[in-house]
Amino acid sequence: MAKKNGGGPATAESMAQQQRDISVSEFFLKNRHLLGFDSPRRALLTAVKEAVDNSLDACEEAGLLPELSVDVEQLAENRFRVTVTDNGPGIVRQQIPKIFAKLLYGSKFHRLRMSRGQQGIGISAAGMYGQLTTGAATRILSRIKKGKMAHAIAVQIDTRQNKPAILSDEEVAWRPTFQAVDAAGQPDGEPAVANHGTSVSIEMEAAYQRGRQSVDEFVKQCAIVNPHLTLHYRLTLAAKPDTGNLKPETKQTSSETPSSVPKSQVSGLRSQVSLPAGQTAVTYLRAVKDMPAIPQEIMPHPHGVELGLLMQMLKDSTSRTLRAALANDFSRMSDRTAREICERAGLNPKANPTRIAHQESEALYKAIQDTKLMRPPTDCLSPIGEAQILAGLQKEIKADFYTAVTREPAVYRGNPFQIEIGLAYARPQENEGLGNEEPVRVLRFANRVPLLYQAGACAITKAVIGVNWKNYSLSQPKDALPLGPVVLLLHMASVWVPFTSESKDAIAGYAEIIDELTLGLQECGRRLAVFLHKRHRALEAERKRSYIELYIPHLARGLKDILKLSDKEEDKVVRDLKKMLEKTHLDV
Amino acid sequence: MAKKNGGGPATAESMAQQQRDISVSEFFLKNRHLLGFDSPRRALLTAVKEAVDNSLDACEEAGLLPELSVDVEQLAENRFRVTVTDNGPGIVRQQIPKIFAKLLYGSKFHRLRMSRGQQGIGISAAGMYGQLTTGAATRILSRIKKGKMAHAIAVQIDTRQNKPAILSDEEVAWRPTFQAVDAAGQPDGEPAVANHGTSVSIEMEAAYQRGRQSVDEFVKQCAIVNPHLTLHYRLTLAAKPDTGNLKPETKQTSSETPSSVPKSQVSGLRSQVSLPAGQTAVTYLRAVKDMPAIPQEIMPHPHGVELGLLMQMLKDSTSRTLRAALANDFSRMSDRTAREICERAGLNPKANPTRIAHQESEALYKAIQDTKLMRPPTDCLSPIGEAQILAGLQKEIKADFYTAVTREPAVYRGNPFQIEIGLAYARPQENEGLGNEEPVRVLRFANRVPLLYQAGACAITKAVIGVNWKNYSLSQPKDALPLGPVVLLLHMASVWVPFTSESKDAIAGYAEIIDELTLGLQECGRRLAVFLHKRHRALEAERKRSYIELYIPHLARGLKDILKLSDKEEDKVVRDLKKMLEKTHLDV
Repeated sequence: MAKKNGGGPATAESMAQQQRDISVSEFFLKNRHLLGFDSPRRALLTAVKEAVDNSLDACEEAGLLPELSVDVEQLAENRFRVTVTDNGPGIVRQQIPKIFAKLLYGSKFHRLRMSRGQQGIGISAAGMYGQLTTGAATRILSRIKKGKMAHAIAVQIDTRQNKPAILSDEEVAWRPTFQAVDAAGQPDGEPAVANHGTSVSIEMEAAYQRGRQSVDEFVKQCAIVNPHLTLHYRLTLAAKPDTGNLKPETKQTSSETPSSVPKSQVSGLRSQVSLPAGQTAVTYLRAVKDMPAIPQEIMPHPHGVELGLLMQMLKDSTSRTLRAALANDFSRMSDRTAREICERAGLNPKANPTRIAHQESEALYKAIQDTKLMRPPTDCLSPIGEAQILAGLQKEIKADFYTAVTREPAVYRGNPFQIEIGLAYARPQENEGLGNEEPVRVLRFANRVPLLYQAGACAITKAVIGVNWKNYSLSQPKDALPLGPVVLLLHMASVWVPFTSESKDAIAGYAEIIDELTLGLQECGRRLAVFLHKRHRALEAERKRSYIELYIPHLARGLKDILKLSDKEEDKVVRDLKKMLEKTHLDV
Repeated sequence: MAKKNGGGPATAESMAQQQRDISVSEFFLKNRHLLGFDSPRRALLTAVKEAVDNSLDACEEAGLLPELSVDVEQLAENRFRVTVTDNGPGIVRQQIPKIFAKLLYGSKFHRLRMSRGQQGIGISAAGMYGQLTTGAATRILSRIKKGKMAHAIAVQIDTRQNKPAILSDEEVAWRPTFQAVDAAGQPDGEPAVANHGTSVSIEMEAAYQRGRQSVDEFVKQCAIVNPHLTLHYRLTLAAKPDTGNLKPETKQTSSETPSSVPKSQVSGLRSQVSLPAGQTAVTYLRAVKDMPAIPQEIMPHPHGVELGLLMQMLKDSTSRTLRAALANDFSRMSDRTAREICERAGLNPKANPTRIAHQESEALYKAIQDTKLMRPPTDCLSPIGEAQILAGLQKEIKADFYTAVTREPAVYRGNPFQIEIGLAYARPQENEGLGNEEPVRVLRFANRVPLLYQAGACAITKAVIGVNWKNYSLSQPKDALPLGPVVLLLHMASVWVPFTSESKDAIAGYAEIIDELTLGLQECGRRLAVFLHKRHRALEAERKRSYIELYIPHLARGLKDILKLSDKEEDKVVRDLKKMLEKTHLDV
């Protein structure tokens, strides 16, 4: 029963008959932990994340201030429906099936420009996981213009061929509205009606659990690094309280987002409300009405192009001369530089680029490497900015000291990237989980997306561990995070973030990236050390002062006896001495 | 210059025009760190590993005792050629291009059976990396039978379409021979001539460096866990000694493989020789002439099949009734069980399996989950075995204590797997890098392949850290490897190893896998504790004995004075007391 084909030794011929294509969907279905679907809890987060990434990218690309709703509903003990709705530009009917039910399809992979999505896998993978675990289809509703009908489409992936199977396709009325809720649990103003946008809904086997790796945390961190985003988050847990993962306190708001804070105190940015049994809702209102700068697409930088890719680019070039091909298809390559490079390589600048031989390409490659060029343009990046990082930290962390650094753009493998770091030295008693003996909390972001899993595999964690924090007055066990009531926010913005797996949870440790992170951390560390040193001195002075103060009355009494002072004069001496002490700067 | 398309906001229509397919080759080319090609050093190892995996799989599948040569030649400062030759069954001409120049193509992905390769990516990825960095083609020589001509083919990947481009294709004379070398640097016996086999040669940008993550270490560990393998390893470094990575001691043999040990002392298993300047050669001779059992292919176990896959399998079934489909397409499903399950699900056993509706599938899925079934068959696995693990450790590590455990097979997500663990308590002075204050050394293997990178991300490392080693008399810092002169060898055998990335360096942390590893480690730990306890007692007794012994002469002198003994009698007293002491078992 166990074996289907004969157990005897194989031959070249019998082996040849077994060779076949593997579709990319089959591959990822079998390897779904690569996509972030290895546990029910992580699956829920990954699905939300992929949908939110796509919505934010679409809104920003279309120049629209994003307003999103994220709706997580528990349908049965281990079954959830995730629905993410945006006010973006919508998706034209013909593209919907491929975008949501075909792996490796999209607009972001082939261009050099910062965006959250980049691989063309995420949302289709979430749908595929839903299909695998529940048999249900991915449902999309989208409208591209006011006055047009919306398209409601249900798709699945044909995993054998990695292509969409359309289960239903209708024109329907458009409905999305967004309702902000205030701190008192009431609707806050008129509902906002979106004229266009996309809503995607996926049913899947999943589990909900509060905490550092929860959907709650993800949407909260999203709001921190996307201050132009308004996000309505609603979580509905099944009434049955016997689900292992659910705390029975479902009528209460989440412990992580304090609901008792009056609206004015949360800077008008966030409000939260308790709804019917099992339902929690939070609205994160946008803090700024300005869109971040729309990143520009750039051409590849010559120094980041490897020999094989150079050969391919020349072969594909539509330019008629080698010089023009170099000048047109690369960034930072003027016509003059292109000619110089041709000369250095011993090639005719007027040669047909599609006919450059292997040997000649190698010479060209070497000439490019040997030529000094400007670094890549950086308008392809849209950093968060120091002011926004500080604002985000101040909103979430009660601290005595905040600082932020946005580094100058740098380059790895020809890809521009930029590191940003925020640091808060918190008051432990006002921030759960932070303390002098606790490891610092590290918030990781890539292209404005919070990274909640695989911290250990991430270049960010490695860089934090690699810094010698003892230099900056924090204690640090060997090969571990430093200890202290510190929150670190680290952001990598790049045209291509090198994730360690398709689930996009950790950044690969390229040396250039680690270096930039380290320099930024050291800068923040130095500022922290200055603050801690000052505070230490102030505390020390305070200690001495109170020590001296203790002796003032005794001193006064002594003087009284010696100089025969009156009680009134004695009081005056005490007062004067105290005043003197207050004015003195005690050097410690 | 920087931007190619307009910087204005996009619309649904303009975005639609940018959407396109991403070929799996393009995807992995851009994400090549996922495949293990993120640094020149790792690239060299990954290429060797993929070629060796394929060769060993082919030999074993054809029932041939594997003999391989691994040839690493430095062509220029940062350019190497890797050539791996085997005595396997060869590859039929038509399959060669796809096997070596198409990602996601192969025979191992679609079957449930233990093998080293499983994804159909590895060797083509190595070729693609070579092509990217040097522009060179992958060269294959293969013959399937004595008397036939061999095929010499050069291929590259057309990355846009993920399909092979054949650059040359000739019939040539066959040539592979294998030459073992002995410890004195001389050819050891007649060269072995293979009648059939495959040789693959890839040129790439790479770097060679000795140490724990080197090709040297990889081939050595390969030999440990594949005692039926003979492997000839030759490393040729460029004469120019200014290469940063090269120690100038190129005329000497590697420091990791002692060349001074006479051949007889290495149990006839390994010999090594110094060759012309820059060249090092080692032959690892096979220790056993028996092939490991050829693993059998199995059908999926019903409990490991998710709803979506069950629906797909029913749709694809060639059986005419639901009952037959269940009994034929799954393992551990008798005709009677199949009927019971149909009844429990309220379905007609004679229904057409291809016409089961979504709702019915869910009922069927639930019925399967609720039915007790035998665990999956385990002849799909081929564990190394406790005796072989002990032999492997004894060969490499000088130790006072060895133990090994092969656990019973277990199951994760329906996939059978088996954990094996070996432990050696080494003599620190005879093993470099081991000591009481050093972290234990962990050797990781998956389906007999050494895993040298990404230890931190691997379930094996997590399991070792997770065990409380203080229970077994080793000290252990918090959340870290225990300390001590211990070598751990851990092997996971499975029909599908869930690697954390396509580079196959770390095993994903499924709970069932961690559990099995933990149980095995605890068993080894208990045995170690018994040994250490015994040794501790022995040392303690020894200490007491010598302490008492110190007083014997004084005692004798006292007795002599009191009892007026002669010198002779005194001597006798000393002798007798010592004898008594030796016979006494000192309880400590």
